[in-house]
Amino acid sequence: MARERSRRTSRRDRAKDTVETISKISKVNQPKVNISPYEMVTEEGIEKIHQASLEILSDVGIDFYDEEAIEVLKANGVKMGGDTGETAFFDREMVMEFVNKAPSEFTQIARDPDNNVRIGGKNMVFAPVYGPPFVYDIDRGRREATLEDFNNFVKLAYMSPYLHHSGGTVCEPGDEPTHTRHLDMIYGHIKYSNKAFMGSVTTGENAADSVAMAEIVMGKEIYENPAMVSLINVSSPRRYDDRMLGALKVYAKANQATIVSPFLFSGAMSPVGLAGTLTQMNAESLAGIAFKQMLKPGCPVIFGCFQTNIDLQSGAPVFGSPESQIVLSAAAQLARRHKLPFRSGGMFTGAKTADAQAAYESMGVMLPAVQSGVNFILHSAGWLEGGLAAGYEKFVQDAEILGMFHRLVEGLSLDENSFAMDSLRNTVVTDHHLGTPHTMANFRTAFHRAEIFNYDSYEKWYEEGAETSEQAAAKKVKQMLRDYEAPPLDQAIDEELQAYIARRKEEIPPEF
Amino acid sequence: MARERSRRTSRRDRAKDTVETISKISKVNQPKVNISPYEMVTEEGIEKIHQASLEILSDVGIDFYDEEAIEVLKANGVKMGGDTGETAFFDREMVMEFVNKAPSEFTQIARDPDNNVRIGGKNMVFAPVYGPPFVYDIDRGRREATLEDFNNFVKLAYMSPYLHHSGGTVCEPGDEPTHTRHLDMIYGHIKYSNKAFMGSVTTGENAADSVAMAEIVMGKEIYENPAMVSLINVSSPRRYDDRMLGALKVYAKANQATIVSPFLFSGAMSPVGLAGTLTQMNAESLAGIAFKQMLKPGCPVIFGCFQTNIDLQSGAPVFGSPESQIVLSAAAQLARRHKLPFRSGGMFTGAKTADAQAAYESMGVMLPAVQSGVNFILHSAGWLEGGLAAGYEKFVQDAEILGMFHRLVEGLSLDENSFAMDSLRNTVVTDHHLGTPHTMANFRTAFHRAEIFNYDSYEKWYEEGAETSEQAAAKKVKQMLRDYEAPPLDQAIDEELQAYIARRKEEIPPEF
Repeated sequence: MARERSRRTSRRDRAKDTVETISKISKVNQPKVNISPYEMVTEEGIEKIHQASLEILSDVGIDFYDEEAIEVLKANGVKMGGDTGETAFFDREMVMEFVNKAPSEFTQIARDPDNNVRIGGKNMVFAPVYGPPFVYDIDRGRREATLEDFNNFVKLAYMSPYLHHSGGTVCEPGDEPTHTRHLDMIYGHIKYSNKAFMGSVTTGENAADSVAMAEIVMGKEIYENPAMVSLINVSSPRRYDDRMLGALKVYAKANQATIVSPFLFSGAMSPVGLAGTLTQMNAESLAGIAFKQMLKPGCPVIFGCFQTNIDLQSGAPVFGSPESQIVLSAAAQLARRHKLPFRSGGMFTGAKTADAQAAYESMGVMLPAVQSGVNFILHSAGWLEGGLAAGYEKFVQDAEILGMFHRLVEGLSLDENSFAMDSLRNTVVTDHHLGTPHTMANFRTAFHRAEIFNYDSYEKWYEEGAETSEQAAAKKVKQMLRDYEAPPLDQAIDEELQAYIARRKEEIPPEF
Repeated sequence: MARERSRRTSRRDRAKDTVETISKISKVNQPKVNISPYEMVTEEGIEKIHQASLEILSDVGIDFYDEEAIEVLKANGVKMGGDTGETAFFDREMVMEFVNKAPSEFTQIARDPDNNVRIGGKNMVFAPVYGPPFVYDIDRGRREATLEDFNNFVKLAYMSPYLHHSGGTVCEPGDEPTHTRHLDMIYGHIKYSNKAFMGSVTTGENAADSVAMAEIVMGKEIYENPAMVSLINVSSPRRYDDRMLGALKVYAKANQATIVSPFLFSGAMSPVGLAGTLTQMNAESLAGIAFKQMLKPGCPVIFGCFQTNIDLQSGAPVFGSPESQIVLSAAAQLARRHKLPFRSGGMFTGAKTADAQAAYESMGVMLPAVQSGVNFILHSAGWLEGGLAAGYEKFVQDAEILGMFHRLVEGLSLDENSFAMDSLRNTVVTDHHLGTPHTMANFRTAFHRAEIFNYDSYEKWYEEGAETSEQAAAKKVKQMLRDYEAPPLDQAIDEELQAYIARRKEEIPPEF
C-alpha cells in the first residue's frame, strides 16, 4: 500500500512537472508601459476634435438598426429621428455621462488564471490577426484557410511568450459550414490554448453560444470578470447594423467586454481630411459605448479605432501609411481624454508575402501604437495582404518584434545600476566594457535578445544558406508546430463542450 | 541676323528647359517638423543624466591626442592632466558656456542654391548611408565597393526627391588608393549631384583638400555659410584621436560644420546600463563641441549620437534594438535641452539583404528618429549588414519610406478643410466619401502615394511575377541609373577641380 501510494504520488509529481513545463511556455507576461505616451497633437487640438464629434452626435446622429436598441436608447432620453426613426441624436452632456460609466481598466479572465490579462491603464495586450479568409506560407503559397490552419495559429499564439491573448477569428475556417464554424473556433481557442480569447460577433445567437461555452469552462465567474473581449465593428459611416447590435446586446447582458471600433478607410467610409476622420471615429465609437452603458452600466468596453486610407487612384487600402500613423496617435490621445481602454494598431501591411514592404509597413503602425500606450492591439502578429491572409512566417517574425516591444515599454531606468558610474569612472580609454563588473552583473538582463533575426557575419550567413528572415521564420513555424503540446484540459469539461457543440450543430439551421 | 539671334535664343531656351527638368528632379524639398517631439523620458530624468555627464567631464576627463588641441584647451582654462597630460578636465559651468556659443540652426550651402539645407530647429535632413566598404545587390551579391558604386549611390541620392543631401563616404571606393580616394569622392559629389555633401575626415590634410575643392565650386561664400557638414567620431570611451582632431581643427578654422558623434556600442565602448551610456555620450559630445567653440566661437556644430548595443553572447552589434530606440529618444531630449542641432538615427539593420528583418529593424530606428525631430539623419538610405554594405535595393526601399516621413512630420492639420464637416454632415450612411466635393477638392494632396510598394490584389501580384519589394526595388535601381542625367557643371570649374585633383594626386605620398 505504501509502495502503491508512493507510485501514485510519483506519477502525480511527474504530471505536475509536465504541467509546470507547459505553463512555463504559455505563462502570460504582460508588459507594463513605463514610457510616456506620445503626444503628437496638442491638448487643444484633441479637444477641438472631441467637440466636433459631439456636434455630429447631437446634430447628424448615428443609425441603430435594431428595435430593442432603439427602445433602450429612447428610454434613456436619446432622441430618435431620421426617415425611419432609426437615427439616434445624442445630447452632448448625456452621451459623456454614459461613457463615463465604463471602467478605465478591467481584467479578462482566461481558463488558466495565470493567463488573465489586465486591459486599460498602463497595460498592453498583444493579440493575433483577426478575420483573414486566406492563409499564406512560403511553401504552399496562398490558399483558403481551414480549421487546421485556425488551430495552428491558436497553437502558435499559445506558444509565443509575446502574445498575451489567443484572439478571435485568427483565420476563417472555410472548410466548416458558415453557420456553425463559430463553435469550432471557440472550441479551438479553449482546447489548444489556455490564454484569453474573443467571442463570436456574427449574430446574437453566436454570441450566446460563445458565452455558454465560456461558462462551461470557467463557470459563473465570467459574469463577474469577463471571459471574452469581442470585436464590434461600426458599419461606418455612422451605422450599427443588426448583427453587431445583436452580439453587443448579448455580451452586455452577460457582462462581457467588447471593443467598439469604427472601421474606417479615409476616402471611403470617412473623409480624406484626417481631422474629419477622427471626428467621425470618435462620434461613432462614443455612441456605441454609451449604448452599451445604457444596457449594463459599468460593463467593460474598449474604445476602438481601426483606420487607414485608400489609394485614391486605385481605391485599394494602403496600410502603414503616414496618415494612419497620425490618426492612430491622435485617437490614442482621445482615448486617454475619455479615460477608456483603447484598441488600435496592428502589424498591418498590403504586402502579399513577409518581405521588406510587409515589415516597413507593419512596424510603421505598431511602433506608434506601442508608443501611444494602446491597451489592446489586435492584429499584432500574422497580418498580410490587407488582412485577407494570415501569414505563417509573418506571424513568427511579428512575434519577434513583439518581444522587443516588451523591452521598449520598460523605458529608461534611472536607477544607480543603470548609470553604472563606477564603470564610467574606472574603464580606461584603451579598454572596453565587455568584462567590467557592471557588465558581468547585468549580463543576462541588460539587452533583449531576438531569436530568429540574424546578426552573423555575411560569410557565415552565406555559408549557412543565405536565408532571408522569412525563410528562417518558416523553419521556426515548423519547429513550433512539431513541438506543440496542448495545455491540459479537464476531460469532463472537454466532453461537456463537445456535447454542447454537437447539440448546437443539430439545432442551428443552415443560413442558405 | 534676326534669324541668327532667334536661333540662338531658341537654343538657349531649349537648354534652359533641360536644366529646369533636371532641377525639378533634384530640387530639395526639406520637411518642416510640425509634430510634437516624442518625450519618452521626464525632464528630471534628462537633467539627472546631464548632471552625471558634467561629473564625468570634471572628474574623469576626456583625452585629446593632439598637441595643438591641448594648447587651445589650456589657453581656455581647461585643466589638463592624466598620465601623459592629455586628459582634459572641464569645469562644469565653463563647458556649457562654450557649448552655448554654437548656433542652434544654420544653413549648409549646396552648389545649386535651391538645394541649400537648413539644419537645426524644426528642420530635418535625410542623408544616405556612410562608410560601407562593401556594396550589395541581389544580382551580384556582396562585393567590395568601387568608385563606380560610389558614383552610383551619389546619382541615386541626387535623383531621389526624399534625400536632401548627397552624404559623404556613401561607400568606400576600394579600387582607388587609400591616400587619394577622398579627392575622387568629393569630385563625385560635386560632379554627379548638386546637393550638399560632407567633407573628408580621415586626416587634417584631407579635410583641407575638401575645403579647397568646395571653394573652387562655391567660392568664398563657404566661409560665411558652411559648404560641408563632416562627421567627427569620438573614439569612445572618452577619446579624441589625432586624425579626427586634425580634421576638426581644419573645419573649425574654415567655419565648416561638423557633427560630433560618440560611436557607442553599449557593452563595448560604453556600459550596458543605458543611463550610463547616455551619460558618457553626452559628456563626450559636449567636450568636442566645447573644444570646437574654443577654436572658432559660433562655428556650426551638430550634437551627435551613434549608439546601439552588442549581443552579449556573440559580441555582434545588434541594430534596431529596443535599447537603441530608448537611447535615441533620450539623446534627442538632451540635444533639445542644449538647443543644439541633433544627429542620430538611420535605417540601421544587421540583415545581409533587404528582407523583412532589414525593414523591421530600420523602421524601428528611423521612426523614433523622425518622431524625435532629429535634424540630420545620416544613414537614411542604403544601410545593410551593420554598416558593412551599402545595398542598392535597400537604398531605394528606404527612400520610399523617407517619402512617407515627409507626410508624417506635417502632422495633423486642424484647419476647416481637414475637418470636412460638410462631408460629415452630408454623406448619408449608405454612401461613401469617394465622390464627395471634399474628396474631389483634395484628391491630389490628401494622401502620400508610395511608388514601389505593392497594393494590388494577390491575383494581380501573382500574375505579374509575385515580386518581393526587394525585387521591385532592383528594377527601380536599374531604371534610375539608366535615366540619370548629370546636373550641369560649369566647364571651367570642372577643369579647375580636375587640375586640383591631378596635382594633389602627384603630391600626396602613399600611406605605406
